[in-house]
Amino acid sequence: MNLVRSLLFAPANQPDRLKKFPRIAADAFVIDLEDGTPEADKAAARAQLNEIVGFLRAQALRGLLFVRINETGSAHAEADLRAALAADIDGVVVPKIEAPAQLREIGAALALREALGARPLSIVGGVESMRGVAHVLALAESEPRLGALYFGAEDYITDIGGQRTPEGLEVLYARSQTVLAAKMAGLAALDQAVVEIRDDQRFRADAACGRELGYGGKICLLPRQVELANEMFSSAPEEVERGRRLLAAAREADANSVGAFDFEGRMIDGPLLKRARALVGLADRVADSSAEK
Amino acid sequence: MNLVRSLLFAPANQPDRLKKFPRIAADAFVIDLEDGTPEADKAAARAQLNEIVGFLRAQALRGLLFVRINETGSAHAEADLRAALAADIDGVVVPKIEAPAQLREIGAALALREALGARPLSIVGGVESMRGVAHVLALAESEPRLGALYFGAEDYITDIGGQRTPEGLEVLYARSQTVLAAKMAGLAALDQAVVEIRDDQRFRADAACGRELGYGGKICLLPRQVELANEMFSSAPEEVERGRRLLAAAREADANSVGAFDFEGRMIDGPLLKRARALVGLADRVADSSAEK
Amino acid sequence: MNLVRSLLFAPANQPDRLKKFPRIAADAFVIDLEDGTPEADKAAARAQLNEIVGFLRAQALRGLLFVRINETGSAHAEADLRAALAADIDGVVVPKIEAPAQLREIGAALALREALGARPLSIVGGVESMRGVAHVLALAESEPRLGALYFGAEDYITDIGGQRTPEGLEVLYARSQTVLAAKMAGLAALDQAVVEIRDDQRFRADAACGRELGYGGKICLLPRQVELANEMFSSAPEEVERGRRLLAAAREADANSVGAFDFEGRMIDGPLLKRARALVGLADRVADSSAEK
Repeated sequence: MNLVRSLLFAPANQPDRLKKFPRIAADAFVIDLEDGTPEADKAAARAQLNEIVGFLRAQALRGLLFVRINETGSAHAEADLRAALAADIDGVVVPKIEAPAQLREIGAALALREALGARPLSIVGGVESMRGVAHVLALAESEPRLGALYFGAEDYITDIGGQRTPEGLEVLYARSQTVLAAKMAGLAALDQAVVEIRDDQRFRADAACGRELGYGGKICLLPRQVELANEMFSSAPEEVERGRRLLAAAREADANSVGAFDFEGRMIDGPLLKRARALVGLADRVADSSAEK
Repeated sequence: MNLVRSLLFAPANQPDRLKKFPRIAADAFVIDLEDGTPEADKAAARAQLNEIVGFLRAQALRGLLFVRINETGSAHAEADLRAALAADIDGVVVPKIEAPAQLREIGAALALREALGARPLSIVGGVESMRGVAHVLALAESEPRLGALYFGAEDYITDIGGQRTPEGLEVLYARSQTVLAAKMAGLAALDQAVVEIRDDQRFRADAACGRELGYGGKICLLPRQVELANEMFSSAPEEVERGRRLLAAAREADANSVGAFDFEGRMIDGPLLKRARALVGLADRVADSSAEK
Repeated sequence: MNLVRSLLFAPANQPDRLKKFPRIAADAFVIDLEDGTPEADKAAARAQLNEIVGFLRAQALRGLLFVRINETGSAHAEADLRAALAADIDGVVVPKIEAPAQLREIGAALALREALGARPLSIVGGVESMRGVAHVLALAESEPRLGALYFGAEDYITDIGGQRTPEGLEVLYARSQTVLAAKMAGLAALDQAVVEIRDDQRFRADAACGRELGYGGKICLLPRQVELANEMFSSAPEEVERGRRLLAAAREADANSVGAFDFEGRMIDGPLLKRARALVGLADRVADSSAEK
């Protein structure tokens, strides 16, 4: 899941929106039984899940396909999970994770399904409450099927009783702790949604900040945000080019027994070299993966 | 204590300032035996405590009334606590909390007083040192009588050997961790003082930042700051109005089976709805509580 | 080590740069066997260590002298440590500390050397990975010979997969947690390097931010950065003067039984007084220590 730049959510009770998935270039898609689907429609949406997933598979959907179930412990969670596991999906999104037991419970259900011969599914956990953030280091390492964490800024700030700003200093602590926990545990880290759905500039600024913090992708609420996320979480050609130049300079420095050298005004040694290698490597992998599609 | 927007401190050895409390609209008042009162005057101030509290009660002081004792373990703490508990107060403020044992000791003294028939008092703990911040998650859950935490930026930055700035990035980590611990434990969270006492703009900016982080109120050093804090930690009428419009739009969306909808340029679902409900609910409670006074 | 404002690194395989140390006013120097020295040159550099240290001592190097060994567990670490301990240094710099056992291992080697009659050496630990940051509170208190921690922003952001910006919000959490752990354990805290080696303004801004957070000094990559660090981590004469005025005003207030007083627009009490005392005290100690040199 480390190449997921865009994770597009759409409500499970809106088949017209879900059926557009195959025309959208998101790296991963989520059929949302939780916040996106009103209480009264959850049961009906659940009942249609298998059919809609079948439709998407028949259309040769590119990108991973997930179902977001309702919060574990809620009236819907068990039925949601059963319906999700009966469909041909790549994994489940579990919102508001707060305790390792929650994740292990889902993990056990997945393990049972695998024991019956199904292919392994992965879990994406939502860190979007005070308890989730406070316990995120333990949560990230609690369940081997966990493949990614996302940070939910709107839910978090609602839980703590604060307010959102464009700069986001009010969530910097929580957003930093979440990406640290995710990456340390080897998981993909997916950044907060931007609810200002018509404000491209805000999405770009927010995505840049997320990428700087270490996130590899972002929650998207609309197809337009998918385009922006794919762009912002890829390396610009000039960045990659600069990385290649830097690596060439490093090979030359090394041949001259120079371990730390001045490259375009910066002192380069171990960490900056590793970063350039990661950048160039990711660009090459993305290019390969695009070529495959 | 969740409606405390303003917590006004005044030195225990300045009766003229204390006697003005009944004319000030603070949500809570603190008679300060700690930093506000010079060493040489602490004993005399303590001896007058009961009388001054009696005066304030006779004047029908609105708002909660607290006494801040000196740091536990200091030469004054025990005598301070005894004097405070002999007066008709609503609780004690304990500065520089660092270990659960400190709070449990104060809690035991309060429990003893209650066992003798007095009404329950609450504790406000000051998180204002490196140890306090590092252990704040455990501190917040260590004593059932704890009703609130305040974050003391000046003391914290003195302890760590840093410097204060208007933007406050130097305390963002500590201030974020403290509000998280407080709100997660169900406590009120009170934000740092602004020592620039003639700079309204700075107070407003600092209060806005505190509110965004999740704080519900702020330490005040002067009556003017009380006015500003009450304003900044209340919702502006246009915010409340917008919240009511949003909730109306949500009812309509729900009736149309739409779980996530576009409202004035924002994609609204669970968390933003909850926040609007909290905002409107708080505004209504504040209105009710003002009506009672 | 609490007076280390500048910690200058130079590659162990570049004797011409190392031999300039005695002409530079850094508070501490590091001969770098790790990132600064290419893999192929590490063994040769190690073999020359004793000689270069001898040269520097013969030149009456002012300031502390350290050797940075390679990461514990790497192929070089043991030989590095042996070579370092055979030379007349003041301590070892251990990069990428992540587990208390790493530090205790180094500590044991130092203890053995002391038992054989050598003078005590100290350890400077590098916090520059996700695990280092996540475990920094435990690391800081794990080994009595640990005298300082430095925060390595470039390595940290490489490890987490993020990107560096001039403002540094992407490392604020990690940088804040590291200084908190160091200062709480009584260690010196040394701030991140600035790799933009020709950008004085950026170095100054970054140093100011570090000082505000509580760091007492900074990693330096070039002699020019040493000058800037020494300046930025000393108090400006007007700051010290202001501190002396404030302390005089406090003595007067105290004589008048006033515990909290208005000084040039700020309400002064305990923490601000302590900070002024620390500022004036540090300025006096720095003056004394300069006089000694």
